[in-house]
Amino acid sequence: MQDGQARIGLIGLGTMGAALASNIAEKGFEVAVFNRTTQVTREFVADAGDLAARMVPTETLEALVAAIAPPRAIILMVPAGQPVDDQIAALRPLLDADDLIIDCGNANFHETDRRVAEATGPFLGVGVSGGEEGARHGPAIMGGGDPAHWARVEDIMLAIAAHHGDEPCAALVGPEGAGHFVKMVHNGIEYADMQMIAEVYGILREGHGMGYDAIADVFARWDEGPLKSYLIEISSAVARARDVATGEPLLSQIIDAAGQKGTGRWTAIESQHLMTPIPAIEAAVVARNVSSRREERARGEAMFGAAPERFDTLDHDTLERALIAGKILCYAQGFVMIAATCEAHGWDIDLPQVARLWREGCIIRSTMLDDMAAALEAHPGENLMRTPFFANLLKENHGALRRVVAEAALHGHPTPALSSGLAYFDAMRTARGTAALIQGQRDFFGLHGFEHVNGLFHQHGPWARQTATPKHEPKT
Amino acid sequence: MQDGQARIGLIGLGTMGAALASNIAEKGFEVAVFNRTTQVTREFVADAGDLAARMVPTETLEALVAAIAPPRAIILMVPAGQPVDDQIAALRPLLDADDLIIDCGNANFHETDRRVAEATGPFLGVGVSGGEEGARHGPAIMGGGDPAHWARVEDIMLAIAAHHGDEPCAALVGPEGAGHFVKMVHNGIEYADMQMIAEVYGILREGHGMGYDAIADVFARWDEGPLKSYLIEISSAVARARDVATGEPLLSQIIDAAGQKGTGRWTAIESQHLMTPIPAIEAAVVARNVSSRREERARGEAMFGAAPERFDTLDHDTLERALIAGKILCYAQGFVMIAATCEAHGWDIDLPQVARLWREGCIIRSTMLDDMAAALEAHPGENLMRTPFFANLLKENHGALRRVVAEAALHGHPTPALSSGLAYFDAMRTARGTAALIQGQRDFFGLHGFEHVNGLFHQHGPWARQTATPKHEPKT
Repeated sequence: MQDGQARIGLIGLGTMGAALASNIAEKGFEVAVFNRTTQVTREFVADAGDLAARMVPTETLEALVAAIAPPRAIILMVPAGQPVDDQIAALRPLLDADDLIIDCGNANFHETDRRVAEATGPFLGVGVSGGEEGARHGPAIMGGGDPAHWARVEDIMLAIAAHHGDEPCAALVGPEGAGHFVKMVHNGIEYADMQMIAEVYGILREGHGMGYDAIADVFARWDEGPLKSYLIEISSAVARARDVATGEPLLSQIIDAAGQKGTGRWTAIESQHLMTPIPAIEAAVVARNVSSRREERARGEAMFGAAPERFDTLDHDTLERALIAGKILCYAQGFVMIAATCEAHGWDIDLPQVARLWREGCIIRSTMLDDMAAALEAHPGENLMRTPFFANLLKENHGALRRVVAEAALHGHPTPALSSGLAYFDAMRTARGTAALIQGQRDFFGLHGFEHVNGLFHQHGPWARQTATPKHEPKT
Repeated sequence: MQDGQARIGLIGLGTMGAALASNIAEKGFEVAVFNRTTQVTREFVADAGDLAARMVPTETLEALVAAIAPPRAIILMVPAGQPVDDQIAALRPLLDADDLIIDCGNANFHETDRRVAEATGPFLGVGVSGGEEGARHGPAIMGGGDPAHWARVEDIMLAIAAHHGDEPCAALVGPEGAGHFVKMVHNGIEYADMQMIAEVYGILREGHGMGYDAIADVFARWDEGPLKSYLIEISSAVARARDVATGEPLLSQIIDAAGQKGTGRWTAIESQHLMTPIPAIEAAVVARNVSSRREERARGEAMFGAAPERFDTLDHDTLERALIAGKILCYAQGFVMIAATCEAHGWDIDLPQVARLWREGCIIRSTMLDDMAAALEAHPGENLMRTPFFANLLKENHGALRRVVAEAALHGHPTPALSSGLAYFDAMRTARGTAALIQGQRDFFGLHGFEHVNGLFHQHGPWARQTATPKHEPKT
């Protein structure tokens, strides 16, 4: 291939970048590739087989730019944070004014907002989910930025994306950092979904005393019902897998300290800024932080005795139903958070479209997302938990969630995400809660005032001089 | 009084500023006062009675500065945020190089860090807790900044602070924003303590069907036991109070939507940045956010049926014991967070000293803080839940916490803070948790690798090419 003919460029041939470049080439687009370490670029193209015919390995940024047909589009797949800014700073001076930079990494959406604002040329922030496998064969792609910029690469994005039937799981979801924001919420939901599965796994393992293969069978069975999803499927695979080093069941050989790359944490932080409740997601992030305190947990067990007792009062059907209810509640929280962000940022993200994007390619893909897309479409602006389809599922299954939370509490099994999901459900279906006491306390010690059921505002208890003027007439 | 003789100045005569100025004057210090609206200053001093003799009302910043004996010290008690920066910008040019500005408002500690870094003269950030009553008659005072600056006003701070016996509840806890940080964590704990009390209140009201006076009696009785604290005391007073407008029980007349001024939210956000788990505090902040969604909660109740059922399987003793356990766990989380922040910021905050500061004057003052100070003193660096005294209390009472969480879950009473506290306790006493499944899933979809029980690092499941090199020799 000659210079100036590649359809697109890609910088950063790590796991995800290499997979994406191969995917692009496989779909028929010529792609110029560059990696800071030239050897990586050479080996990548050398190993690319037939796809190498549609790849242009380049060894300098100047060569990369020269290899691409103008107006150019260049994907960045470098580590999030400063490396992205550094790469943009190095690249932009080499580009023409209308050349497009596309950050497909794991950027914090606030950074993408900033980069869009600071950009001296076209810029898109695109969330890509699906791990290496997804990037290679079809990820979910959540774009953010200017529609005119997206239009220039839309054919590539649709081609490389996962497909649900004929529908590609790629779209521009909104302006600025909206793509990376939606990807972040995806990951927050992923944390909660994984944590809820892990909590049930703990009950099966320590409560029921089941072996790994039997647990794998349970997950495999659930993967044929309403919980059918990638995460349930791989939970079965992981439970059944053998450790390469020892031949023992894999789960018996993995240290129980969960890592994180930050997107769950960002989701929790953002939800607190927005004051939009996502307690199941927050609980999942916290659970990872707790898991990393291994030495402390061991000392706790030595001090208080082994926590998760054997018990068999929960059958598999009840556990499955509890997971169904818990899953609905954590997704409901995630979708509400997207809506809240739209309001705060003046974005107009199409929630049903987001649900459709997540149906394939990404980590949280599941059949339930099909029904979520339909429910959000039919009931715009409604909390998923109150759409008829999912309200009915919750009515059928919240009893099971209660029993699991209760039995787990009695027998020392931590279920932070499931119990947070249940508390959210119960609070969100209680017209008259208990916050009046909190308001009374706040008025007692801080004279913060309260709203009165008769429509009076800034009222005080009898401890205060009653100097406030009613802003509204009493309703009675 | 003549110009140049006041010992200290104070800007901002709102509720807290006025109370603090009166407190200072009452303790024998001459104080020059200024408010943006001159009329407020005049009325304040006119209403100050005998204390007016030690007050210098001033009507311009220049007059304020002139009224104070150099080297000057001036307290700011203006709304947090931009007003503080504006006030500093207006004031500093009028001051001598060694004049001291003391921000006693509710600043975010990151802003105090910044203000210390940017300050062109001496600056202290001081957290003041206790509401109007505390500010007037003795608050808890948490100072942050340079010891040499603190020394210049220490006599005033000790004099105006609450006292526990002879010990004043005022101290410099650390450099930079450490004072406002400790105040923030205080407020986070306050949120959780209040929320746990509100959860138990809900069980008494809706579960047991008790009237307000009977509930007030229960709280009053608990205020004579291990839960003895300002918050339990005022919970009783609030439950017993009558509404001024209608004569009805006050709690029946307050709208159940809890407000917040941000410090709880800041605590939750900071804990996520630090990756230090404070789930009970986070749950309390989320509960306030949920409470504000009144219209949605009413629709939820219409759809799913009234949530909190009547039940009577929990006696008052069990509820009291559950609150004891829950309270220990939320304070434990707060103290761990302070320790984590010290590590992150290179601060050296004395945890027992913080517990001692909180024994009087502030909103979370309680007899239990006496024992906490002793426990933290005797076991430096240990999580409060594992100090012998509190470990024993937890051993005696975690069973009650389990029963409350379980019964509440079964009967539709949301207990987000209590159940988060329990999940934290159980996870922190489980040597082998369930995060291995999460690590297995992460390796399956993202090749993130995992730690192997044999001491191998960056291992993969059988789905991966096994290219990782063990960083450590196997332990076996």
